[in-house]
Amino acid sequence: MMKPLVVAALLVAASIPGFAGPASSVPGETLMKGFPPAEELRVNRDNLMLPPYNGWAFQHIRELQPTREVYRGAGETTALESAPVNLADRSYVVGGQRKITLDEWLEEAATDAFVVLHKGKVVYERYLNGQQEHTQHQMFSATKSFVGTLMLMLIDEGKVDPSRTMQSYVPELKGSAFADATVQQVLDMTTSISFSEEYTNPQADIWAYGYVFGLSDVADQDRKFNSIYDYLPTLGKTEKFKHGDAFHYATPNTDALAWVLSRVSGQSLSELIATRFLQPLGAQRDAYIWLDRSGTEMAGGGLNITARDAARFGQMILQKGRYNGHQVIPATVARRIMTPGNPETFSRFYPGEPWYENVGHSYHDMWWSFQNDHQAVAAMGVHGQFIYIDPAAEMVVVKQSSHAEAEGESNEVDGPMIWQAIAERLLAR
Amino acid sequence: MMKPLVVAALLVAASIPGFAGPASSVPGETLMKGFPPAEELRVNRDNLMLPPYNGWAFQHIRELQPTREVYRGAGETTALESAPVNLADRSYVVGGQRKITLDEWLEEAATDAFVVLHKGKVVYERYLNGQQEHTQHQMFSATKSFVGTLMLMLIDEGKVDPSRTMQSYVPELKGSAFADATVQQVLDMTTSISFSEEYTNPQADIWAYGYVFGLSDVADQDRKFNSIYDYLPTLGKTEKFKHGDAFHYATPNTDALAWVLSRVSGQSLSELIATRFLQPLGAQRDAYIWLDRSGTEMAGGGLNITARDAARFGQMILQKGRYNGHQVIPATVARRIMTPGNPETFSRFYPGEPWYENVGHSYHDMWWSFQNDHQAVAAMGVHGQFIYIDPAAEMVVVKQSSHAEAEGESNEVDGPMIWQAIAERLLAR
Repeated sequence: MMKPLVVAALLVAASIPGFAGPASSVPGETLMKGFPPAEELRVNRDNLMLPPYNGWAFQHIRELQPTREVYRGAGETTALESAPVNLADRSYVVGGQRKITLDEWLEEAATDAFVVLHKGKVVYERYLNGQQEHTQHQMFSATKSFVGTLMLMLIDEGKVDPSRTMQSYVPELKGSAFADATVQQVLDMTTSISFSEEYTNPQADIWAYGYVFGLSDVADQDRKFNSIYDYLPTLGKTEKFKHGDAFHYATPNTDALAWVLSRVSGQSLSELIATRFLQPLGAQRDAYIWLDRSGTEMAGGGLNITARDAARFGQMILQKGRYNGHQVIPATVARRIMTPGNPETFSRFYPGEPWYENVGHSYHDMWWSFQNDHQAVAAMGVHGQFIYIDPAAEMVVVKQSSHAEAEGESNEVDGPMIWQAIAERLLAR
Repeated sequence: MMKPLVVAALLVAASIPGFAGPASSVPGETLMKGFPPAEELRVNRDNLMLPPYNGWAFQHIRELQPTREVYRGAGETTALESAPVNLADRSYVVGGQRKITLDEWLEEAATDAFVVLHKGKVVYERYLNGQQEHTQHQMFSATKSFVGTLMLMLIDEGKVDPSRTMQSYVPELKGSAFADATVQQVLDMTTSISFSEEYTNPQADIWAYGYVFGLSDVADQDRKFNSIYDYLPTLGKTEKFKHGDAFHYATPNTDALAWVLSRVSGQSLSELIATRFLQPLGAQRDAYIWLDRSGTEMAGGGLNITARDAARFGQMILQKGRYNGHQVIPATVARRIMTPGNPETFSRFYPGEPWYENVGHSYHDMWWSFQNDHQAVAAMGVHGQFIYIDPAAEMVVVKQSSHAEAEGESNEVDGPMIWQAIAERLLAR
């Protein structure tokens, strides 16, 4: 059984001013309806992270922020065959005791899209809350796994040496926490960066990061940066541990990594995802990425993609990098992604962030490893974004959501338990 | 021969502070290149309308502003057959005397894309300045002709009565200049709205309009509005003439018209363009529309579309509304668009705006009529955007540009002269 990824300190969200819970009187399906929409139905940069507004926002990021297209090319879409299995008809145990059907749970967990592939075929697919098959949904930190995969490819091609320091690729990082971290430490999020990512705390560093990407004001004038390239060099070290000693999840690691990617390849993140993934995969739609105030992609969490194209990406990893007649990523890279990390190393957690203790997961190369029997791995993002790959069951699950909580049991704990149960069921067919 | 559409008061642009000419030391192809781009290579909301930055910006509006997708649907792209004619090998006379080849002129006129269809086939096609076949380019006021066409369709369907007042459809317009204007007067831009659209004058009303759409600050605090729906009702009348008496080109007319479109249809402009045009046309790409600070589409000038899809739209008009096996718009609507207006009525120009005097054009239903032998009509936008339809030669010309001047002889005068010459050549084949 899955142990909690996050401890429920997160449940205090509703008590923090400006981070209050949903304006429950506003039904999500009325948001932004009308010409003009009534005042209380308007989604904007100030409320886009908050329920119920996030339910509209995460399907419409480009209507709120500058974005860059990730071009799928002019090629054919790779067909996704359908082989329906009625997964809705049985109950699952969530929250330790409560029985609930899959469809009830999907609604409760604020799901916008849910796609299950088994042996590459669509066995179950649902769209809720206004999302459609062609809607590109905000993936938050699931974006990181795309970035990590790209870096593994450049390493495989000999273009990046993972043991070299970050400043050796990006001299602008000199003097920052990243300077003497190796590329591999950044990939594994074991840098000693001083950065807090408590989404429920408005003073947390993650909101200064948010400012760079056009989210609403931060109080502190000297934490306002217009470009991620200006912001990253200002991040300092913590004295609590050294590079490589502990897992410490900090989103700017991925943006620093993307800086190396672009400096080395001469391509933007959007070009890399387009040419390395979407085009060979035969994606059905363009994706797009949220930009900072100066036009740089949010590598730490800005990808917007359809559920089906996210599933194609997961299926490609599952198939050892092969998809649609292309070796999209080298088999060695796919194997590495699918190899569990060392949970002991992982559990040398960052002191003072207890929720990473004994979580039964590990993290490496910007991917989560579930230390379960099936050795599943996942790309995961706040508010319930998942690309979950179960090699034992030959299953890929994509869940795109707009949960009220950034992190919480409903998605992070119950979700993978249910997918494990679905996997068992598919294996037993 | 074409007479000037605009008089050269526009050439004073370079002398107005903040509206200076190009930073000529910056080569356009280096803009936004680098990680990060050098300071002087950055395109942002403050410089996007100015050369050389506009050369990048007009191909990348969504990277600078919030935008809404115009979905092409999941259907097949309608093929555009190729039947090349070498139009580059002869010279044209521009500026009254100077001889120049087509390709030289295209570069000089800051062309980004140029497509000529003859009898529905592509006879000439060029992409410059980084634009590609799949690039959606900002169309500015050529957008208005899409909006006008939609209104003519709703009128044809009996959903809108063109003789009714604007306030009878949109009560919020009561008290504004639009209140007692008829829908038809708005379609024809004969409302007595007090609005100045001199792009070279930073005090002109067009820049307060620009503020609503996220362009840089206007000095006057009480001219700052966050929504076009808040802005339109504040526009008052001029005492210089009455509704219906004179042509007076004013962009907010189109936004007021789009308000009626959405109020009556229950659909946003992006949904209407998607379902009424792009989907039945079999467009090759999604388009998108620039949004105001509250998420409303810029009907007056926010459409971004590929040159080929703009050509498909023009070809559909030329074919009396039929395209790709669909009667996309009623033949009566297409015929009306192709019917020249009354140049005499048109030349009762708005006093104090001499450049509309004796221009040899007319304007009705948000389309320009060229009063030439071929009875060509066009959708036109500042900085050199054109969808030019020549029924006599069965020719459609699309030009997308990023000219340094919003309006000027190079595009507005020389362009149609050259297309007329191309038309003669195609007719003579």
